[in-house]
Parts: sequence; C-alpha cells; structure tokens
Amino acid sequence: MIKAGIVGGTGYTGVELLRLLAQHPNVQLTTITSRKEAGMPVADMFPSLRGRIALAFSTPEEAPLKDCDVVFFATPNGVAMQQTRELLDAGVKVIDLAADFRIQDIAEWSKWYGMEHACPDLVAEAVYGLPEVNRASIPGARLIANPGCYPTAVQLGFLPLLEAGAIDTAWMVADCKSGVSGAGRKAEVATLFAEASDSFKAYAVPGHRHWPEIRQGLARMAGQDVGLTFVPHLTPLIRGIHATLYARLRRDIDVQTLFEARYANEYFVDVLPAKSHPETRSVRASNLCRIAVHRPQGGDTVVVLSVIDNLVKGAAGQAVQNMNLLFGLPEHEGLTQIPVAP
Amino acid sequence: MIKAGIVGGTGYTGVELLRLLAQHPNVQLTTITSRKEAGMPVADMFPSLRGRIALAFSTPEEAPLKDCDVVFFATPNGVAMQQTRELLDAGVKVIDLAADFRIQDIAEWSKWYGMEHACPDLVAEAVYGLPEVNRASIPGARLIANPGCYPTAVQLGFLPLLEAGAIDTAWMVADCKSGVSGAGRKAEVATLFAEASDSFKAYAVPGHRHWPEIRQGLARMAGQDVGLTFVPHLTPLIRGIHATLYARLRRDIDVQTLFEARYANEYFVDVLPAKSHPETRSVRASNLCRIAVHRPQGGDTVVVLSVIDNLVKGAAGQAVQNMNLLFGLPEHEGLTQIPVAP
Amino acid sequence: MIKAGIVGGTGYTGVELLRLLAQHPNVQLTTITSRKEAGMPVADMFPSLRGRIALAFSTPEEAPLKDCDVVFFATPNGVAMQQTRELLDAGVKVIDLAADFRIQDIAEWSKWYGMEHACPDLVAEAVYGLPEVNRASIPGARLIANPGCYPTAVQLGFLPLLEAGAIDTAWMVADCKSGVSGAGRKAEVATLFAEASDSFKAYAVPGHRHWPEIRQGLARMAGQDVGLTFVPHLTPLIRGIHATLYARLRRDIDVQTLFEARYANEYFVDVLPAKSHPETRSVRASNLCRIAVHRPQGGDTVVVLSVIDNLVKGAAGQAVQNMNLLFGLPEHEGLTQIPVAP
Amino acid sequence: MIKAGIVGGTGYTGVELLRLLAQHPNVQLTTITSRKEAGMPVADMFPSLRGRIALAFSTPEEAPLKDCDVVFFATPNGVAMQQTRELLDAGVKVIDLAADFRIQDIAEWSKWYGMEHACPDLVAEAVYGLPEVNRASIPGARLIANPGCYPTAVQLGFLPLLEAGAIDTAWMVADCKSGVSGAGRKAEVATLFAEASDSFKAYAVPGHRHWPEIRQGLARMAGQDVGLTFVPHLTPLIRGIHATLYARLRRDIDVQTLFEARYANEYFVDVLPAKSHPETRSVRASNLCRIAVHRPQGGDTVVVLSVIDNLVKGAAGQAVQNMNLLFGLPEHEGLTQIPVAP
Repeated sequence: MIKAGIVGGTGYTGVELLRLLAQHPNVQLTTITSRKEAGMPVADMFPSLRGRIALAFSTPEEAPLKDCDVVFFATPNGVAMQQTRELLDAGVKVIDLAADFRIQDIAEWSKWYGMEHACPDLVAEAVYGLPEVNRASIPGARLIANPGCYPTAVQLGFLPLLEAGAIDTAWMVADCKSGVSGAGRKAEVATLFAEASDSFKAYAVPGHRHWPEIRQGLARMAGQDVGLTFVPHLTPLIRGIHATLYARLRRDIDVQTLFEARYANEYFVDVLPAKSHPETRSVRASNLCRIAVHRPQGGDTVVVLSVIDNLVKGAAGQAVQNMNLLFGLPEHEGLTQIPVAP
Repeated sequence: MIKAGIVGGTGYTGVELLRLLAQHPNVQLTTITSRKEAGMPVADMFPSLRGRIALAFSTPEEAPLKDCDVVFFATPNGVAMQQTRELLDAGVKVIDLAADFRIQDIAEWSKWYGMEHACPDLVAEAVYGLPEVNRASIPGARLIANPGCYPTAVQLGFLPLLEAGAIDTAWMVADCKSGVSGAGRKAEVATLFAEASDSFKAYAVPGHRHWPEIRQGLARMAGQDVGLTFVPHLTPLIRGIHATLYARLRRDIDVQTLFEARYANEYFVDVLPAKSHPETRSVRASNLCRIAVHRPQGGDTVVVLSVIDNLVKGAAGQAVQNMNLLFGLPEHEGLTQIPVAP
Repeated sequence: MIKAGIVGGTGYTGVELLRLLAQHPNVQLTTITSRKEAGMPVADMFPSLRGRIALAFSTPEEAPLKDCDVVFFATPNGVAMQQTRELLDAGVKVIDLAADFRIQDIAEWSKWYGMEHACPDLVAEAVYGLPEVNRASIPGARLIANPGCYPTAVQLGFLPLLEAGAIDTAWMVADCKSGVSGAGRKAEVATLFAEASDSFKAYAVPGHRHWPEIRQGLARMAGQDVGLTFVPHLTPLIRGIHATLYARLRRDIDVQTLFEARYANEYFVDVLPAKSHPETRSVRASNLCRIAVHRPQGGDTVVVLSVIDNLVKGAAGQAVQNMNLLFGLPEHEGLTQIPVAP
Repeated sequence: MIKAGIVGGTGYTGVELLRLLAQHPNVQLTTITSRKEAGMPVADMFPSLRGRIALAFSTPEEAPLKDCDVVFFATPNGVAMQQTRELLDAGVKVIDLAADFRIQDIAEWSKWYGMEHACPDLVAEAVYGLPEVNRASIPGARLIANPGCYPTAVQLGFLPLLEAGAIDTAWMVADCKSGVSGAGRKAEVATLFAEASDSFKAYAVPGHRHWPEIRQGLARMAGQDVGLTFVPHLTPLIRGIHATLYARLRRDIDVQTLFEARYANEYFVDVLPAKSHPETRSVRASNLCRIAVHRPQGGDTVVVLSVIDNLVKGAAGQAVQNMNLLFGLPEHEGLTQIPVAP
C-alpha cells in the first residue's frame, strides 16, 4: 500500500483527491492537513465522505508527512514551493496540484503569480505531469507539476496537430469554458449561485495565468514559439471544461485519422467519431478527455472540441494518474469509474 | 458471474443500471433490449458509456433473456407484467423497476395506473424490494417489485417512528422534492430546460401514483391504515429526492437515538448527528439514504429529512441491492461508489 | 416627484429597489449610501443598471437623507434602528426592509436577532407593511416594517383560512423553498454556485428568524396563538419562494371560493383555478403572489401553494407598494411589469 | 394605437412578443393564432401573462389578420412565406421572426432550409431588420426580415471593425454560446433539463443555418466575401447569447475608441469600458446588446465580447424595435425595461 498524505485538503481538488484515493485499491490515506480546520473530521466538512474517511484534519506540524510515500499539495499557489524540498530530502515523492512547478521560466512565473520563487532548482527538476506527453519521464521523477485544468484540455486538443506540424502556429485560438468549481471553494461574491447561475461571461481576457503554461506546452510540441489567444469563460456548470480550439491547417490532412492514431493507446483520451460533439457531462466525475475534430465546410480551419472534468483529469484524477506512474502501478488503477450521466 | 439482461434500457433508470452493472464485479451484462433502437450500440445513445459497454440494443425477440440469471425491467408501467411469467417459468429472476408489482390491491393499482392487471397472482407472489424492511423475504423470491423513488425516501424516513408506534398515524405529511430526471427521458415540454430550470412548483397535489404505494408501506409498518398527505414538487436538480416529513409524536421520545438504533446495521442508511440537514448532493450517484431527525423547539412535532439519489437508491441502485440479496452476494457489492460532490 | 433615498444599496434588495424605483414614474432617486463603496458609480457594481442610474454611492454622512421624502433601509438587521428616529424627526418617512421593526415583542426580537433593540417605542409605532392585511394603517404611518420574504408568502397563503376560522390553528405546517438570492449578496461558501446548484437541502429546522414573525402575523389573523412548524429549504433558483402550507380543516368548506372571494380585489394576489400548481417563474421579477388551494382526495387536509419573487413581493416590490400607499399613489404604480418567463 | 396580430404564438418568441406588446403604450394586441391551441386562452398556456392578456388563440382562418396594421410571424421556418403576400396586398406590414426572408441568395436559402422558396420576389423586397445597420431602409419597408439571434450578436460585434476596414476578413472566428430557450419550446430529448443542465457542448460544427445569414451580413459590411468559422454551443442558461469574436487587425488601431464612436448614438448598444467582460444577465429580459473589445497582450488579435438576450434583442424585442421604426415611433418605445439581475 502506498502511504499518501494531502496538504491542504479543504478545497474542491482536496475533496476530489479524497474521493479518488479512498477508493484506490493500493493507497492508504495517512494524513491530511489544514491549519485552519485542524481537529475537524474530514467527513464533517464533506458529508459525501461520511462513513468512508475516518481521518481528521491535522496541523502541518503534527502531520506525519515525511512518513508518507507520496504527498499531494492541494494548496494555493506558493505553498508547495516552501515545503517540497524537505519532503524530497526525506525521500517522499511530491505531486503539486498548484502552479508552483509548472513554468520553467522563473521570471515569467514570478510575473504571473506575483511572488519570488523559493526554489528555482526544483522547478528545473520537476516533471510536467501530462502523461500523454511526458509518460516516459514521470516514473523516475521525484517531483511532479500537475498541469492546470485549462492547460490539460487545450494541450490534449492541439497535441496531434502540433506533433504533425499540421497547423500554422502563429495564430491559434483557445476559447475555453469552465464550470464554476474551477474558481475554487472560496467565499467570493462573483461565484455565488445568484451571480453565476443563469449567466455566462468571459473573464481575464487581458491575461490569465494559464496562458503562459499552455504556451509553454504548445511550444514544446511545436518545437518553436506559438501565437495563442486564450479566452476563458465562466459557465453555469459545477464541473467540466470545454475547450473549443481553432487553427489554420498548413496542408490538406485527414484530421480524424491523425487524432485516432495519436490517441489509439491512450486509456484516458477518447477520440469521438467524425462529426461528433462531446458534452462535458460525458466525462463527469471521470478521468477521461473526449475529443472531436472538425473541418467545417471542408475548409482549412480545423476546430477541435476537447472536454474534461476540471476536478478529475484537470486536477485530482490526473494527480492520481501521475502517482500510479510514479509507483509502477497500472496507469488507470483506481481511476476506472464510469462517468456519471445524467 | 451473474448473467444479467435489461429490458428497455433507453431511459434514465436504464443508463444508470448500465453504469452500475458494468462496474459490478460479479455481473456479466448479457443483453439489453429496445425495440425502437435495435441495432444501435448502447454507447452511441449514452456517450458516457463509450469504451465500457460494447453491447448494442436488441429487439426483445432476439434478446437471449431466458438465458439470463436475472432480468431487470426498466420499462414503462404495464410492460413487465406481460413478460414476467414466461421468464419466471424459464427460471429467470425478475426485478421490475416499474410499478407493475408494487401494489397488492389490484383494484387500487388499476385505478391509479389506468389498466387491467395481466397477472394478479404474480403481484401476490412478488416481494416488495425495500431491503431495510423486507430483507428476509428477498433472497427466496423469484420476482422483486423494486420500490418507487418517492416511496423509498418516505418509507425509510417514517420507518423507525412507525415501528416504534411513536407517532399519530392519522395525520402525516410528506412534502417531497424531486430532481427532473425523475420525470424520465421523454420528450415533453414541461421538463425542458427552459421550462424547469430557475423555477419550482408542486405537481399532482390532487393525487400521485406513489401515494397508494407509500400508504401501503406505511400501513404495513404501522399495522393499521394511515392518513397521509403527499405533495411532490419538481425542483431544478438533475438527480436527488429530498423528503421532508412531518408527524405528531404520541409520547416524549428521543428520536435521535431511535433512528440511530434502527439503522445501526444498515449499510445504505446514514443517520446524521442531531441538528443536521442532509443535502441531496451528499448522496449523488450513490446508493445511500441520509436522514436527519428534528423536534423543532422541542415540541411534539417531529420533522424527518431524508435524501436519496432518485436514480440510484430510488431505482437502479436499489435494484442491484436486491439482485445482490437474490444471489447471496454481499449486499453492497458493486454499490460502494463514494458520492460525487461537488 | 417623491424624493427617495436608499441606505445600504449593495445587496440584492438594494439593486432590486434601484431597478424598480428607476422605472417608477413618480420617484426621483436622490441618494444611495454605502460606506464601503462610497464614490463608486452604482452602475459599476450593477452593470444591468448602466445607462439608467447615474448616481454613485455616498457615505451616510454626505448623503442628503433628510431632504428625502422617503428613505428605504436595505441594510443588515440592526442598522435601521440606529438611524430611523433622526429621519422621522426630520419628517422623512422610513421603510425598513430588514427586520428591526417587524416583531412587537422586544424580548422575542432580541432573542432571535441577538442584540438589544435601540428604540422599542418605534417598534410600537411601526406598521407592519403587508398591505393585503394592513392597508388601512399604512397611509398614516411614518415608519413601515416591510415584511420578510417567507412571512409574505406564508401569511398570504394562510390568511383566508385563518380569517374564516376554518382551520385548526394548533398544528399548521409551512414547508418553504427559497431561491439562493434570499441568502443575500454576501461572500459565503454555502451559497457558492458549486455548493448550492444541483443540490437541495433544508436549513434552520431547529429555528429560523422568520418563524416568530410568521407566528405573530398568523396569531393576529387567528385572534389567538398558533402552533406552526416552519421548515425553510434552499433550492437552486436565483429568485422565488414556494410555500407549501398544510392545515386541518375544522369544517367542510369550499376553499376555492373562500380564496377567490378574499383576494377578489387584490391587484397583486392571483388565485389560480382549482387543481392548479403555481410555479415560481410565473411571478419572476414581478410583485405578484399566485396561490392555489387544494383538498387532496377531498379530505380534511387543506394544502395551499403560494409563490412570490422573494426580491420583489418578498422585499423591494412590497416596499414600493408600501411607498405608494404612504404617498397616496395608486398601489400598483411602477409595479406593473409582467413577469419574465421563460 | 397600432393594431398588432401574431401568427403562431405558442413558442418562446411568441410569449416574449406578448410580454412586450402587452406593455407597449401604442399597441393594441388584436389577435393571435395557433391552429393547434385554438380556443385556449393565452394565459392558460403562459401563466406569467394571467390578468394581463385576455386573448385566446384563434385559428388562422378566424383571425382578423388583415385588419391589423402589423402582423408578426413567430412561426417555424417556411410558414410566413406562404401567407405574407396576401397580408401585404391588404396593406398590412409584416415582420417575420423566422428565416424566410433573411437570405437574398434563394439557392443558398433552399440548401440550408431544405425547401423551395414560395416567393423569391418578396425576399428581394424584404429589408433585413438590423436597425443599427439598416435604420434608413426600415421605415419605408412593407416586409421586415427580423434577424436571427446569433446573427444579431455577431454582426453587432464585428460591425465597427468591418466598416473601418480594420481586420483581415479572410479568417474570422465567431465562437457563440446560447441559452437553451434558443432551441425553442419543442418537446425534444436533447433540451430536457436532465440533458442540458450541468453540461456544455458545441453543436452543428459542420454547418448551422445562421452561418450563411451571418456571412451575408458581414460581407455587406466588408464590401467583399468573408471567411468565417462559426461554432455555436449550448449552455445551461435559459436566455442569453454570448458571442466571442476573434479577428486579426490589419493595422494598429484604438479599438475602444472605434467601438465607442460607432455606437455613441445607439440606444440599444452599450460599449463597456476597456478591459470589461459583459455577462449575459446584464441584458436579461432587455433589448440591449453590451459589447467589450480587447487586444490581449496588446497584440494584433482583436477579441470582441458581445451579449444579448436571445429572446429580446435576438428576436421579439428587435421585432418591436422594427415595428417602432415602421410606424414612426421612438425606436425604444415599449422597450425601456431595465434588465433583470440577479
């Protein structure tokens, strides 16, 4: 059994990690920290877990994190970078679900996240945990930077096209829609039910922190810088991201075949038949990414539709997928739940 | 492996049965019928099942139902009663998720369901599949009448009070709220998104088919007729039933202890601590019923709050629970999924 | 033109007052205060008002409240009682949308609202602004206690029955469902979209502040104390209250005729035909209350269904209705908007 | 008073026309037809209209359509073209809210709508009723082709850029999101609450009927053919369209100033301050279009965010705006309702 700890488990990625780890056949959940809620049974905060998780929140000081085999950080940005070195030194694997280790360019990271980085050397060491791209590098890593939710949906959508050199990388568009859980379990007016339901809006059009992460990933795939316009939208669903991607084809290509071939052996990526339209609920509560690819009117514009559950493949599920790779387990162990629909 | 078949799998109870049975370790899904959709792969209708269920819908004639160990009817009312005898004669166990075998008084049934009953003798034989009440009778049965969704939530909420003779049975109130999936996957204006979202209404106040079913169950528990007012409401959620129950106590009693004692050994019934308020999402996509019990201002009125997922404990999950009992499996086999929240 | 001021206009009742007053033909909106947002144009906070309201928020000190003909308090409980006397002394009429003047029993008020009352004499003077009950007293008043949202829906539903002495007042039940805007525009986790959507729950079953207000009103109608169980529920709609009321008839009575007669001349109360079920959206964004009354199976239990928009008839609209009465205008002036559906 | 008739008033554009016309100070609603519902009072179908509209549905034969000054067609595509000539000959103005007269290229129309056109000469005569573009032509017209919902949002968003020749017309993208009411009040599984809520999907990516209509409009503005990719999405709101538009600037230009100048005198188009993000609820139940324009990171990509209420500015409200122009009334007469938010 893998002994797993969670730092900061009071948000939505935290409760989702708890749901997945509690059902994982090879994991023993050892400790979960929250300074603010120390002493409170986890199931008191999250009644959906009643009867299934007996742990209470601990302070970080009390928590036996160094005795764990793996520690997940489900914390705000800037926390993991303060505590990771000590855990790595103790031989603990670390998977950070926040953004501390995602961006290799430290100056760029500081600009977007508004703080100095505490350990640039660990950024250099960290492996970006998108298994469909970096599967080979993950098993040997000590530290995984788990990708953001938008970056997961967008990168998986563009990946086959970029690897094939099939599109003009100078003008790509990612029009993305996220459920409100993506904003986290924080008390804020803008995400109240009476504000966010029965309404739709774009946000952060001048600039969003996931833009540099996505660009970094796309540039790696393309082997060169890319021009990307990224517009996120808040949409009245609890979970789900729908990325609608636009690019111009450089040559006439059978995009359906390209996608099917690229993802033929990926357990968690499902390429739909031609002319399909994935809906977010078709992946709800699962670690799947479903993708359809179109060339409207047979023209040179390619449109990719990519859906994930932002809390699973976009966060906690992908973290467990990375854990499985780190410990040599089947990649889908504990992640085979069928999506919940309706 | 239990060979299972489904008759009529194109509705919400059908897809939920498919989700549960496909993840059940002891079940092999053998056949699923739909005359209208014969030939269509199940996963084409329900994309959430892509990659997990390879079956296509068959016509009832082609389907090897008699080779099954158990057949689930997820059909409109009046279908199961036409086909059950033949299956029973062939040694197949039958679990009807519709109402054909739920009401022992045949005249009453005909009045509410608007048709003659095809096999009153089988009604007499059928066991009402509410395991928390009838656990002993289920294993030996050939035919299970799976309870309705409202009846499950209401009966489990009143059960401890009635068994203890603690309440006045002459004036009980069940004010129930259901998610829209309870109306089924039928093309109707009243349940369109633009009609049913951001609105709330009662319906069927003059009379609802679940009223006689609930009364029959409560009367059995009470050992006498009961006076029950039942008002169902349509509420803008996909899944979930919340029953708010009102009754007058006959004597001063510790209702919290009563409920905890009654359900101490029930895997699927969770009595919350005093002063709690269960929310429907705390049981979403699970077979659980969570219950809280109150005496506002310490008075003689008892208020019970009972929540279930109408498609799971209120339909498909309870059917699988009954199947487990019929075949001697642990009652929770294949039903241990943790609720999905948020 | 009536010069109107608003104290505390940053919540949902505030923005709704703004919407209604800006469209009222006899009102000039003079000032609106918010200490926290002083200087910010109102339309920057509420973009729906862009181009229609040029005012900015002022500090209470700067605001020319004493020059107003009427001041509305859309503040948290406990604010109006501090500022009302000074305004009354200056000849300004006051309408408090909070609870400071609703409950005549000062000790009871203090118990439920957790503070000492600043001006019990003004409570004694205040008129409870439910025009369908107190229409005669309102025009001569200086100070109006605008009713709560639940109390409006429940009192209008029970009114004809109590006035007629038709029901047993010892055991009445009000099972109420409210949209989430009823919780206010406050940053809180429990009313986040990802918490409150696709879920349903009761709350405050041990005791809710509207319970003593409702009981006081019902007792006045009945001429004696009443036994009332009140259970509020949070339901995933933005606006709307649905009250489902239960009582036992003392005598055989034609409830449909009773209700139609009582409300025949009420502009804002619409009694639906027999066997109807009002939906909350049928009153959305309007000052209407629609009511249906049932006797299921012709028994002695009467079920009343009463719907309002909690922000209009349950708050801002009723306040404007009271203002119209105070200033001798037609009661429906500025309140004739047709409900918005779908 | 303008005598107005409605043909086919049982859908969402119908009820919205009824809501607006019943509150219009210069309109007398004379007749409304529905063959299927003939005899039923309008308010029985739409309870939100109880007490405000006394009309019942008539058969088309009985309805005094020729005595009207104006007739609105709120019918499925293909109906208006059968009945318009007779009305025009009788001196009645016609406003078609469907698509029969929107597309000048008859062959193109037939291809997308799957039928022969009954009166190509009337298509040639019809004026496309987008007042912000065609205001001068509308007053003298007999027949108005009221624009589609997506076309309204997209054309108003691209208009300033195209008139100024500021963007590359070869590769424009319109990523559009619509509330579910846009699919109409038809009994269909795909738009059931339990299908369409808490989910998000694109649809009709291979081709949507609004694509040729939008292209026609944009080409007129540009003075040349345009390359447009149009992807509509179904989003869980009742009302609202959000168009996110992408284009490449040909030259460095102050887009904020450009938009503000173009729409300075438009009553119904509101250009938000720089860096804004309009939300659909800020125009809910109003005839407004709110627009923001961005150049992310100051690059050469322009992003326009354009929101309307699909049933008002996208249908019934725009039709009333056209009626006002046809009859020499102030353009905003009867259309000054403040948006309903929250």
